[in-house]
Amino acid sequence: MKRKVFFISDRTGITAEMFGQSLLSQFENVPFEEATLPYVDTVDKAEKACEQIKQAEQETGMRPIVFDTIVTPEIRQVIQSSGALVLDFFHTFIGPLETELGETSGFRVGKTHSLRDNEAYDSRIEAVNFALNNDDGITTRHYDQADVILVGVSRCGKTPTSLYMAMQFGIKAANYPFTEDDMEKLRLPMELKKHKHKIFGLTINPNRLHEIRTERRANSNYAALKQCQYEVREVEALYRREKIPSLNTTTRSVEELATKILATTGIKRHMF
Amino acid sequence: MKRKVFFISDRTGITAEMFGQSLLSQFENVPFEEATLPYVDTVDKAEKACEQIKQAEQETGMRPIVFDTIVTPEIRQVIQSSGALVLDFFHTFIGPLETELGETSGFRVGKTHSLRDNEAYDSRIEAVNFALNNDDGITTRHYDQADVILVGVSRCGKTPTSLYMAMQFGIKAANYPFTEDDMEKLRLPMELKKHKHKIFGLTINPNRLHEIRTERRANSNYAALKQCQYEVREVEALYRREKIPSLNTTTRSVEELATKILATTGIKRHMF
Repeated sequence: MKRKVFFISDRTGITAEMFGQSLLSQFENVPFEEATLPYVDTVDKAEKACEQIKQAEQETGMRPIVFDTIVTPEIRQVIQSSGALVLDFFHTFIGPLETELGETSGFRVGKTHSLRDNEAYDSRIEAVNFALNNDDGITTRHYDQADVILVGVSRCGKTPTSLYMAMQFGIKAANYPFTEDDMEKLRLPMELKKHKHKIFGLTINPNRLHEIRTERRANSNYAALKQCQYEVREVEALYRREKIPSLNTTTRSVEELATKILATTGIKRHMF
Repeated sequence: MKRKVFFISDRTGITAEMFGQSLLSQFENVPFEEATLPYVDTVDKAEKACEQIKQAEQETGMRPIVFDTIVTPEIRQVIQSSGALVLDFFHTFIGPLETELGETSGFRVGKTHSLRDNEAYDSRIEAVNFALNNDDGITTRHYDQADVILVGVSRCGKTPTSLYMAMQFGIKAANYPFTEDDMEKLRLPMELKKHKHKIFGLTINPNRLHEIRTERRANSNYAALKQCQYEVREVEALYRREKIPSLNTTTRSVEELATKILATTGIKRHMF
């Protein structure tokens, strides 16, 4: 039987999920079943959530765990009365912060993830559009506006990483693929050479690349292990020769790739 | 002078940022200057972080605030010694969890955001690719595989929302624009009608739409306020007529849109 876990929030629930996941991930041997209850912003909704929690306890015979980020005290109290282990993110830390800042908190629901200011929001949308319009080497005309240009073989993770950098940090990330045809005498194309300081290389384990490409186009030369090995070897040699900083994507999440690229290059983010 | 805030983590720092931001957003009148120090995973790096914190205190004359998610006790202790107000996310909650679960935590760095399992990761990449391949009505052939199809006028927020749903929840979100040409006698195209239960409408304040379109193509009919008003009116009438659930994107972040769509439709997410 899995231990039931609830992420409860008066808003999106995304912070509550991150909060809870990062703690649960420390208990690898415990099986959890997770559910998010977002927008619990009235006492009435909190009481319904309570019922769900109590029911989960009856069904599993185990006390559920609740991670919550509820701002309003009255709503939070209802959740507290559920009988679950309630780990309350907001109220645990707001006290020390109020003392330190000599200010009382607004107790305002909906500040997180809401549009803190239009400017930050616009820079995010602009960055996402930039990533889309400059994906996969579609065009190289806007590289002067790019914060970073990710390069690498097809299917090594360039697109998700560019999009994540745009979405999370408002960074304008273009990406450019080295294709089969480029491989012989691989060198940096002219358009990239001009912006060499912006280039960041991605690479990948050839076996994993072979797997990914096989799912896409089985039994093709494109997916053949030998071809994957060849492309990765050539590209990695290019990175060394041209002193292009690079990362291996094989066992890294896009969050890790994006933040490591920031840390390595020192690119300034446009959003917090 | 702004109060200096540090988000410190032995990993990406994304959880520390979310954690801190959600609390800081409650103090609207206090000016903060934020910095993230990711991958602080050795005592040596922690000591360097400490120096930065102490320097910030000297420069600003105010005690800095640190939000940290550091797992390893020895590294955390170094940060604690910095003299800042250190709000430690991990160690505050891990104790009660250990007691409840009757298990000791792994104290393992790098569980959050690392590839918890390949399956979840693949479903994310697959969903991002789906969103890209089915963006902006490029094709309607894959709608049978879609979890949701977002519809709305050009520039109302469909693409960022689809991508966010893919990235955060592994959901396959296609999107389809209603264009100027569709407006007269607006009705659901045949390809959409077949998948009506998957359709979710987005709408937007015409004035905001006018602003956004003006930045893109100033003085065009496309950007004219009158045209924006017309399109929004037609599309909203369609939603009412066809009983399509919808959301106004004007003052909502993509996080809010994505989670509200999940809550409204009951679509199952593929990732936690």
